[in-house]
Amino acid sequence: MSTETQSLDELCAAVRPAQAAQAADVLARLDDLTKPPGSLGRLEDVALRLALLLGDPPPLLRRRTIVVFAADHGVARRGVSAYPQEVTAQMCRTIADGGAAICTIARAVDATVTLVNVGVAREMPSHPAVLDRRLRAGTRDITETAAMTSAETAAAILTGADIVRERLATTDVFALGELGIANTTAAAALTAALLGRDAADVVGRGTGLDDAALEHKRSVVRTAVARAHREGARQPFDLLAQLGGLEIAALVGAILAGAAAARPVVLDGFIVSAAALVAVQLAPAARDALFAAHRSAEPGHAAQLHALRLEPMLDLDLRLGEGTGAALALPLLEAAANMLREMASFASAGVSTRSNRV
Amino acid sequence: MSTETQSLDELCAAVRPAQAAQAADVLARLDDLTKPPGSLGRLEDVALRLALLLGDPPPLLRRRTIVVFAADHGVARRGVSAYPQEVTAQMCRTIADGGAAICTIARAVDATVTLVNVGVAREMPSHPAVLDRRLRAGTRDITETAAMTSAETAAAILTGADIVRERLATTDVFALGELGIANTTAAAALTAALLGRDAADVVGRGTGLDDAALEHKRSVVRTAVARAHREGARQPFDLLAQLGGLEIAALVGAILAGAAAARPVVLDGFIVSAAALVAVQLAPAARDALFAAHRSAEPGHAAQLHALRLEPMLDLDLRLGEGTGAALALPLLEAAANMLREMASFASAGVSTRSNRV
Repeated sequence: MSTETQSLDELCAAVRPAQAAQAADVLARLDDLTKPPGSLGRLEDVALRLALLLGDPPPLLRRRTIVVFAADHGVARRGVSAYPQEVTAQMCRTIADGGAAICTIARAVDATVTLVNVGVAREMPSHPAVLDRRLRAGTRDITETAAMTSAETAAAILTGADIVRERLATTDVFALGELGIANTTAAAALTAALLGRDAADVVGRGTGLDDAALEHKRSVVRTAVARAHREGARQPFDLLAQLGGLEIAALVGAILAGAAAARPVVLDGFIVSAAALVAVQLAPAARDALFAAHRSAEPGHAAQLHALRLEPMLDLDLRLGEGTGAALALPLLEAAANMLREMASFASAGVSTRSNRV
Repeated sequence: MSTETQSLDELCAAVRPAQAAQAADVLARLDDLTKPPGSLGRLEDVALRLALLLGDPPPLLRRRTIVVFAADHGVARRGVSAYPQEVTAQMCRTIADGGAAICTIARAVDATVTLVNVGVAREMPSHPAVLDRRLRAGTRDITETAAMTSAETAAAILTGADIVRERLATTDVFALGELGIANTTAAAALTAALLGRDAADVVGRGTGLDDAALEHKRSVVRTAVARAHREGARQPFDLLAQLGGLEIAALVGAILAGAAAARPVVLDGFIVSAAALVAVQLAPAARDALFAAHRSAEPGHAAQLHALRLEPMLDLDLRLGEGTGAALALPLLEAAANMLREMASFASAGVSTRSNRV
């Protein structure tokens, strides 16, 4: 199927449940490796899910690609962020120049960073390290109208999918990140609507709001969600168009394309997980490709992970975004896969099994 | 100072507080990097501590050495482990052959593994991948007598220190691990005595005990601690000799030598942290070089980390040992150091600081 002609329906239909191995067989193998059963804890769960997705043993998960989608949000004018909107473009430049947090982390975990502009408000001079896939100058203000038209939403999803597909041949595992001033507001509205939660449950301080600003952000989210409901939006695609963002829609597409190709996709924090909720509601089997890196300090992230039935691996109180948490988890996925690829069994290594004495 | 002549007193005296940078300066620098203040959470704490230890900016933490000390325990004959004692020697062989969990994880994080036999009970054929520094055939049964003489304890500490010193020229960061059937029993006894806790607080299921065996292990630990107290042991060195193990003593020496050389030392789980408690009681400034990788599923580990005032980075429910948790955290230390080495500041990147609008 060519990239150009694939529709959203085709993309969703291409996501199939992970059945590359039988769970019972993988669990038996895990318990036969030279370690006490279950002693590698959550890493064993990750190994099992990798085997179901990729086969047992899984391939080497060495070629690590971080994709960061950047876009702006009309709702930024409501004063919901501690930073002005121009920071989105400035941080794009900082990532492109290699000086952002995600760049330094990428070097520590031997990953490459792809930065994609899908809708930064300000015109940016072209930069060899920024992929220009800009669809419009940020979203509309979600307290007043839909963030995106249906056509814009679909285009952003397919753009994200294209970015992943273009990297399949050189990538064993993806980490996803985002950048966009005010995007915790959009993600909170989307999460509240998708999960049927009140704004108070899912709105956090983002990059650093005080108490009064937090209360204001909650009211902005409530206003946006109520407006979307009045518009009749109930389905995940419509809620994404009403409340989401261009980078969030691109993340939905990236997740669906990664899942359709059976590539592990490591989620970052609150914004990426909002996209994951949309992706999994559009194509439930997409969950089989998803791995949660960390539990964000944003309060709504726990509700998202609960709904996704994913357990995070890192405990670092991160709340930066850019894919930083996802990037930090990349070596953990390779380690989990390596268990099934390389560990000896009790029998092959001639190691005694559990004693009957106790 | 030559390796051969350094005494334990000299080793402890060589451990100095981390003062390679001023905390206020590092904190100001961290807040000036292009990220919301504090948004990298615990990774910023790690970056601060690395700067205090190594200077700001810290060096590249790329050359990663995992050292695993192996030894046996006389108390194994009390039926405190789910596995027979010969597994210690068998797992040494499995590590040496590259098929153990720590080997597969080491490859995922680009680290080398050094395995040191400091007291495996069974004679092992020599193997090019096992350093033979065996001091005796395991410890004595701690329910009946001291695990080691004072001379044996000092020799094991200095052996561990030598191993680290021999690797300083090729190592930016150490991860420590251990292997030894029944060593959670020794570590629990040592931890209970060092922290003044009851056995019930610090004894866990180790590699997999059932309820009855867990209760038996608690009574073994209580017996050992009561015996050590009757012998008059109160100081950390004496408690280590009475209740510890050859690999635990070697870990104490490795920690002290790493700290004396201002190398970051990443702790694994319950057994390595018991050694850290001894090291920090012998030389309090050693704490400045220590980093906690993960919170083990062993219940006593939380008490140890609380006493050490260290926060773990990984949330994986590991309880394997071999240094697996410490190894998985190695890229996180490099990432934390890279923040201070490579991130742009708001000023240098031309990024706007926090808005006054909210």
